[in-house]
Amino acid sequence: SGLVLVKNPHLDLMEEDVLYHLDLGTKTHDLPAMFGDIKFVCVGGSPNRMRAFAQFMQRELGLPGAGEDVADICAGSDRYAMYRAGPVLSVSHGMGIPSISIMLHELIKLLHHAKCRDVTIIRIGTSGGLGIEAGSVVITDTAVDSCFQPRFEQVVLGDVVVRSTELDKGLAEELLACSRDLPDFPTLIGHTMCTYDFYEGQGRLDGALCSFSSEKKLQYLRRAYDAGVRNIEMESTAFAALCGLCGLKGECCCFHLL
Amino acid sequence: SGLVLVKNPHLDLMEEDVLYHLDLGTKTHDLPAMFGDIKFVCVGGSPNRMRAFAQFMQRELGLPGAGEDVADICAGSDRYAMYRAGPVLSVSHGMGIPSISIMLHELIKLLHHAKCRDVTIIRIGTSGGLGIEAGSVVITDTAVDSCFQPRFEQVVLGDVVVRSTELDKGLAEELLACSRDLPDFPTLIGHTMCTYDFYEGQGRLDGALCSFSSEKKLQYLRRAYDAGVRNIEMESTAFAALCGLCGLKGECCCFHLL
Repeated sequence: SGLVLVKNPHLDLMEEDVLYHLDLGTKTHDLPAMFGDIKFVCVGGSPNRMRAFAQFMQRELGLPGAGEDVADICAGSDRYAMYRAGPVLSVSHGMGIPSISIMLHELIKLLHHAKCRDVTIIRIGTSGGLGIEAGSVVITDTAVDSCFQPRFEQVVLGDVVVRSTELDKGLAEELLACSRDLPDFPTLIGHTMCTYDFYEGQGRLDGALCSFSSEKKLQYLRRAYDAGVRNIEMESTAFAALCGLCGLKGECCCFHLL
Repeated sequence: SGLVLVKNPHLDLMEEDVLYHLDLGTKTHDLPAMFGDIKFVCVGGSPNRMRAFAQFMQRELGLPGAGEDVADICAGSDRYAMYRAGPVLSVSHGMGIPSISIMLHELIKLLHHAKCRDVTIIRIGTSGGLGIEAGSVVITDTAVDSCFQPRFEQVVLGDVVVRSTELDKGLAEELLACSRDLPDFPTLIGHTMCTYDFYEGQGRLDGALCSFSSEKKLQYLRRAYDAGVRNIEMESTAFAALCGLCGLKGECCCFHLL
């Protein structure tokens, strides 16, 4: 049916659903009227960048009001920022798996309550590249953890549940096809490694703590490259797992900053 | 000596240290002049709340400019916000362990470069309470993980390193003593459980996914209570581990919202 699925039998029994961190709710807002026609959701870490993206989409789609400021739909909360440009929603998610997970739980419920259909969700973030040119874009085929395994370990009431992190391969190919029109941004499909830590977790030598040598760092990153990893970031496994379980066609498409 | 320790031999060899997510650096900013007299750092998730806290401290300390707006020292970055009021620094950290870890790595290096001495750091956040009155404040003696163990598992180059999560017991007692002057806020010392997820990880029944019954949820929270847990949040284990390793006297002091 193309509807966004929630997998929670308790939700139907609730009189009101407050999407607390988005400052939205089923009693305070007419979610179908506000969001029913949304077809694309783009998410990224930085609120400023997601505002700029919404403004860019307004211009690209030739929408009325293009060039003017866009309103933050979640202005009542400083946890996340949300903007819309026609059928495109642009939402920030902060940094790391816990932060993107909170946003995605509430966003998925929002799309469900709004009765949206056939929604595509794309994470447009930054990442560190592995053996690729600076300025490249990596489209993720599979998100892997810090042991290069395609899994997301979610703790549910103290027990570990392992979830799949596959993304939509058709969408990855479509995005790659689009990239052929943009020769300035070399684009490739590869695995994306997702870590819980930016410094020690990604082999950086410039954190407050570092117990390993430059050689050990390079050995680890070489092992990651040999396992098919082309970029490293901090949200993709949780993103892939949640989108997959809730019937959202999802992709990660990250720009490699030097 | 009371100095803030960094445990990274590579830092001394670097010509410049860019604290990227704070938009500060050793070449672009005179960190000792800007921060050398800082004695207290208060951190919390929300940027708006940390600005309000800095304004509150300005008034409490009777500083010049009290009542006026305070400037965001990290205005060039939208990842974190930082304000100061006399010897007190007020910094936001976003939500979850990965987000607070990035901030703490860079904050610890900042305090180290600035040659600060005898710094006390307190996380003033919100949390969910367990078997306590709404409006209570929990001062953490030990941060525990979702299995109620006093440990923080940090992945370093793909290997798990286990770190201690003890906080400063003397500081906890000092804060408890201060609370006696504030009868409106019942205050207690207890364990704080830190999870990677807000919905499934904390037994909430209102996420996009929920596979457990209300009974299973209550059984888990009862086990947590019996293990000494009095509140649940998403940053304390990483906070305790990083502060402990870097010689920062640290405490978590969280308000229980209903």
